[in-house]
Amino acid sequence: MRSWWGWGHVAEAVPDQECVQLGALLPGLPGQPLPVPRIEDLGLPPSAIAVPASLDAICTTDKAERASHTYGKAYRDTVRALYGRLDRSPDIVAYPQNEGDVVRLLDWAGDAHVAVVPYGGGSSVVGGVEYRGGDHTGVLSLDLSKLDSVIEVDPVSRAARVQAGVFGPALEDQLKPYGLTLRHFPQSFEFSTLGGWLATRAGGHYATLYTHIDDLVESLRVITPVGVSESWRLPGSGAGPSPDRLFLGSEGALGVITEAWVRLQNRPTHKASTAILFSDFADAVAATKAVAQSGLHPSNCRLLDAGEAQLSGAGDGANVLLLGFEGTAPVSALLEQAAELALAHRGRRHDRENATESWRSSFLRMPYIRDALARMSAIAETFETATTWNAVGDLVEAVRTEAKAAVQEICGAPGMVNCRFTHVYPDGAAPYFTVIAPGRRGSELSMWDEIKAAVSEVLNRHGATITHHHAVGRDHRPWYDRQRPDVFATALRAAKNALDPRNILNPGVLVTPR
Amino acid sequence: MRSWWGWGHVAEAVPDQECVQLGALLPGLPGQPLPVPRIEDLGLPPSAIAVPASLDAICTTDKAERASHTYGKAYRDTVRALYGRLDRSPDIVAYPQNEGDVVRLLDWAGDAHVAVVPYGGGSSVVGGVEYRGGDHTGVLSLDLSKLDSVIEVDPVSRAARVQAGVFGPALEDQLKPYGLTLRHFPQSFEFSTLGGWLATRAGGHYATLYTHIDDLVESLRVITPVGVSESWRLPGSGAGPSPDRLFLGSEGALGVITEAWVRLQNRPTHKASTAILFSDFADAVAATKAVAQSGLHPSNCRLLDAGEAQLSGAGDGANVLLLGFEGTAPVSALLEQAAELALAHRGRRHDRENATESWRSSFLRMPYIRDALARMSAIAETFETATTWNAVGDLVEAVRTEAKAAVQEICGAPGMVNCRFTHVYPDGAAPYFTVIAPGRRGSELSMWDEIKAAVSEVLNRHGATITHHHAVGRDHRPWYDRQRPDVFATALRAAKNALDPRNILNPGVLVTPR
Repeated sequence: MRSWWGWGHVAEAVPDQECVQLGALLPGLPGQPLPVPRIEDLGLPPSAIAVPASLDAICTTDKAERASHTYGKAYRDTVRALYGRLDRSPDIVAYPQNEGDVVRLLDWAGDAHVAVVPYGGGSSVVGGVEYRGGDHTGVLSLDLSKLDSVIEVDPVSRAARVQAGVFGPALEDQLKPYGLTLRHFPQSFEFSTLGGWLATRAGGHYATLYTHIDDLVESLRVITPVGVSESWRLPGSGAGPSPDRLFLGSEGALGVITEAWVRLQNRPTHKASTAILFSDFADAVAATKAVAQSGLHPSNCRLLDAGEAQLSGAGDGANVLLLGFEGTAPVSALLEQAAELALAHRGRRHDRENATESWRSSFLRMPYIRDALARMSAIAETFETATTWNAVGDLVEAVRTEAKAAVQEICGAPGMVNCRFTHVYPDGAAPYFTVIAPGRRGSELSMWDEIKAAVSEVLNRHGATITHHHAVGRDHRPWYDRQRPDVFATALRAAKNALDPRNILNPGVLVTPR
Repeated sequence: MRSWWGWGHVAEAVPDQECVQLGALLPGLPGQPLPVPRIEDLGLPPSAIAVPASLDAICTTDKAERASHTYGKAYRDTVRALYGRLDRSPDIVAYPQNEGDVVRLLDWAGDAHVAVVPYGGGSSVVGGVEYRGGDHTGVLSLDLSKLDSVIEVDPVSRAARVQAGVFGPALEDQLKPYGLTLRHFPQSFEFSTLGGWLATRAGGHYATLYTHIDDLVESLRVITPVGVSESWRLPGSGAGPSPDRLFLGSEGALGVITEAWVRLQNRPTHKASTAILFSDFADAVAATKAVAQSGLHPSNCRLLDAGEAQLSGAGDGANVLLLGFEGTAPVSALLEQAAELALAHRGRRHDRENATESWRSSFLRMPYIRDALARMSAIAETFETATTWNAVGDLVEAVRTEAKAAVQEICGAPGMVNCRFTHVYPDGAAPYFTVIAPGRRGSELSMWDEIKAAVSEVLNRHGATITHHHAVGRDHRPWYDRQRPDVFATALRAAKNALDPRNILNPGVLVTPR
């Protein structure tokens, strides 16, 4: 069973006793975890709106459904849920069974001026699926999880036509009989959908080459209030600005993605990995850059700073570069070439064979740990960015310094600020930061919001993106608005007004209409 | 000296005697070439408009300038110029020296309702730089060739900030001291500019991976009538729909690209190539697909059908797959892997070592040959597309059949219809067709237009893009309009109206405002 208030499966949540042990690692936290919140304790207001009878069968006002569709899965979502604070639950949760249902729901919502929040797996960590007010008569959460089929596979071109509501594992299960894979594995893989990946320009697990879902798209089918947009299946085209690239990253504000033709790969049959240690972070960055610029395209090229390596059990006090290759032909020669490049920067071989596995299992476990820390009133969250190689050293240093200063000031005690590079490019890297600090019970939300604002200012000041793959949502809007060229905002606003003239689609994300 | 009416350098034009020899290869052509048209014979109407004194220094109404900025370099442009038929020359040619000049010109043009046609190298083959009417008071050709500098190089991130008006060779010359290259070599390389590549989503010479200029862009700076758009330099981002992707392919209709930060590579030090022959085209396609899906990323993976191979001197009656690799480490092992994959499809090694060089020199010479054939009243033009592997065999067959039928009907004699694949992807290929047929003197233009319409219908019927890398311009509009999702057209039109509210920018391309 999925947790309505926290990450993942209820059965995998950290038990109370372990929560206490985790909390003891930080100074001054309460001795007991906040209790797991219960649906029955929530006082949701009654639904403000009702759908017409013709839509009744696909809609629900069930309390648990409304509660679980209120927020995404950011730290601030977990904290609010722990305190039973559901600011604005959707009035209705709809489960369209087909595209016709989506059209009917949008038509009704337009007429009734109801906000429609498209909902895939609900794993947003940026406030992407919550309503935060406006003049709408009500809020409908449009849960696309019933659109969960691979409709057609083209094994010759290695592509598939897939409905947007399919979760990662179900997608891969349906592709497996063909020996094919989308090979897009974000950390949220189990709990997120293809449509969510597309709408948020999600980043997969693989560190180089095809990092974002964008590059895996042949065509999109999108339902908008003014009609259906379906692009042609093309391996490449130069016919005008790409239609797909307008909808990729549109976060439900321009339309509801219902289907995509996606590019697949043969399942890899060869894998090899190694880990290289660096005493000095600057050396580690230089080594990572050398690999990123080598043209070797490792599937894994993840730099963990010493703190992050320690936290994930992959390190021994040093910075660690995890290198891995996958393919349908032997890859060990490629791995050796990459390792040689990295070792040349005062690197040394890690003596632990399983550093990558340690890191990976810790990586998948981390969101549960975050929820456990939240229950102990610790602050525990991540944020991520990208910048060019010439700027990344200064950026990481500035974020570390200012995040630690913000934690010290706001929490009155030092915190942990770790960094890893999740994705690397020939021209830059995507640093990903983890902050863990002691909060004050009852003030966790405002404390984190203050820290997050401080670090977001650092990103903007350094010209680093406010998000490499977590999306903008509502949480990143102030910084996104400053990052985005105003002229492009003008164009985007015009597109929004044209496609969603009654402003019902996910209001609050991306761009303010008119 | 550049030719005002035909391709490239005047000095490299085919001499009359060779024109006659070429013409003799086709049945029923006239015995003498059309004379090379002379500027002094042209009867251009006087300029309908005059710029204010403050802009005088950067503008010209010189007849040769106006004539040479009337058309691009398509076959139909050459033919019209040969007949002295300049339908609508620009009234003024402006050479802005800096961005301030561009802003001033756009402001004046907006007030005066003058159409502004951005002009890079003028090598458009789709009617991208000609004015075809509307309610404007006059036409200004905005020649950006004075904005020709590499402003800044970041060797750490391997990127450069480059002005849009720089021609290919001058760009590479400025990057060479750094050991870096943009490595974007379209057939028009010598005669086209960075800004033109960006505005048209140009395709480079390399067959896989980074085929279009799109992927080489870190950020764009664009002057629009409502302000300047400048995106941040980012190696990757997921912050909303990509701002750059709206301007890439916007063909001057949304703004004037003045600068870009582009991604560079180290200059390759190792090269290896081979050629493989196939008696059967279907085998050759299967072999090409195997290489395209291998993950090996050859720099050259060009399939020539038997006719194309013959024409370019690379073949001996068979279909030829040209394979090449480049890199900063040895590439011969990669070449062997790719060759093995290809040979497995009933391929055999070509006994000529220099097939790639033969093809390449023929490739660069081809536009001059085309002009020579045009002077003999032959029809000689190319068109290109892309589609998925499952569809490419049928598409090529249908285009061949229908193009030959159209030639037979329209020309009353058989013509040559050849095909090559210029770029390949894991999920599909970009077929490029050459048509050579006997025209009737005086009717060449309408004959080609009829053939082109017939083959464009085939592309649309097969769901193949109307252009993989030649852009839409004015010539492809009818088919582009049917290919492009209507809902996306609505968004694009809204963006156009918002950024170019007085509709002065390259009117007629991409989208009809309001």
